[in-house]
Amino acid sequence: MKYENHFKDYLREIEKGLTEILPLSSQQPCLIHEAMRYAVFPAGKRFRPVLVFAACHAAGGKVEDALEGACALELIHCYSLVHDDLPALDNDEMRRGRPTCHKQFGEAVALLAGDGLLTLAFQILAKIKPASKAVQVLEELSTSAGTYGMIGGQVADLTIQKGELTLPMLDYINIHKTGKLIKAAARIGALLAGASRDVERRMMRFGEGIGLAFQSIDDLLDGDGYLKLMKGREVRIKVRDLMANAIREIRPLGKRAENLQFLTEFLLKRIPRETHAKVD
Amino acid sequence: MKYENHFKDYLREIEKGLTEILPLSSQQPCLIHEAMRYAVFPAGKRFRPVLVFAACHAAGGKVEDALEGACALELIHCYSLVHDDLPALDNDEMRRGRPTCHKQFGEAVALLAGDGLLTLAFQILAKIKPASKAVQVLEELSTSAGTYGMIGGQVADLTIQKGELTLPMLDYINIHKTGKLIKAAARIGALLAGASRDVERRMMRFGEGIGLAFQSIDDLLDGDGYLKLMKGREVRIKVRDLMANAIREIRPLGKRAENLQFLTEFLLKRIPRETHAKVD
Repeated sequence: MKYENHFKDYLREIEKGLTEILPLSSQQPCLIHEAMRYAVFPAGKRFRPVLVFAACHAAGGKVEDALEGACALELIHCYSLVHDDLPALDNDEMRRGRPTCHKQFGEAVALLAGDGLLTLAFQILAKIKPASKAVQVLEELSTSAGTYGMIGGQVADLTIQKGELTLPMLDYINIHKTGKLIKAAARIGALLAGASRDVERRMMRFGEGIGLAFQSIDDLLDGDGYLKLMKGREVRIKVRDLMANAIREIRPLGKRAENLQFLTEFLLKRIPRETHAKVD
Repeated sequence: MKYENHFKDYLREIEKGLTEILPLSSQQPCLIHEAMRYAVFPAGKRFRPVLVFAACHAAGGKVEDALEGACALELIHCYSLVHDDLPALDNDEMRRGRPTCHKQFGEAVALLAGDGLLTLAFQILAKIKPASKAVQVLEELSTSAGTYGMIGGQVADLTIQKGELTLPMLDYINIHKTGKLIKAAARIGALLAGASRDVERRMMRFGEGIGLAFQSIDDLLDGDGYLKLMKGREVRIKVRDLMANAIREIRPLGKRAENLQFLTEFLLKRIPRETHAKVD
């Protein structure tokens, strides 16, 4: 079954949640609200919020308790793309077949729209009940999105272009830039389910594994990243190892973990048979 | 007595707090941590965190309970300056007699350092005990810093340069761009003191009044903003009215409000005797 069909219910809840959380474009200040919606809609895979839901369910929780956490993660992901695309960073003009946010709204509005999405992500966490859970999610999300997490990976990625690329440095970038937020999604699902420490730790290791695998597969698809230092065959082995370990972590959760299992299979199917490294 | 002497104890606690919260420049990723510290140190007036402390004390609380809230406000203020100075927005090269963050570290690192400061501001709120208070502060700070608060004012400020300046629009900008965060400082002080709803509301009206007065005085000093539409004499009357109303709000709090009183006097002393509007 296709991803969109398998996760139809999750995706509907996520789109509904995001639609309600984001201010209407008709509300003052209209321009930035329009830019924020442009950055969030239409939906991509929504991989991170789907993972929050799947992890929450696997850990024995109710998916409706995970909505704010799921939407917050997607908002953080979207803000990071808007800022990453800016001329000061990647200077990308197109994303998913459309002009990037700053090409559509100008650099100033795009910069502030990114700030607005980041701020809104934390704002919606205040709705999580009880307050003790809201604070746990706040701590996890802010740490994973911060300079020891995603932002740290972005900075390292910038710096490395000037210096020399090594495997430990590339591991650092991939683990932080992409991996930390995916690990956070899995852990936040467990936290919102009120999982035991054992299940929470399993979910963290699961998220860590598929987070790095996720980025490694992107590298295989883009002919970039790891392919600058490793053979395609080696990267594929690395990905399959990461996935096998991740699946081992969730096996004791039984049937409740089948959506997590589906996510790993979805990722494995993305691995291309042949890979060609880009020549820079 | 001078501001720095009067608030010596507050300022020492704030510098100590910020020093401990911000990652060391020697910690990976070093460059962004260095840029974040550059944006926060050396201290300016620290008006917002001082106001948090003074409001907390006036509302019957202990200043040490307000440290995280105070530092979070200062981090939000500093991030907003870093992003505001970027070429996409104000394109300023100097701030407080030094190169701006992007002049010193490059645009990419400055952009991410701003993101890092914003994320860190929310991260430290997770330390507030009990969790119910942390969530109250999270809600207030994220709302005041968001698109219905400070960011909304920044966007309006950008948009207005292309359109026509009216007094309601300028009120909107000043109330949001500067006022909302100062109002939040006063309210957060009250929340962290565990104040009654009556005292909390007084503190909000107090903060709202001095927030707008603060920006109006800046306009008088810069020959900008309100001076484009009003006479200097009219702006001074506006400021004194705002201040008189603000002081009326805190009068019932008695001697505990003397630091808030000092803050209003400090602002009043900044009003220049003569003002000349800039010709654009």
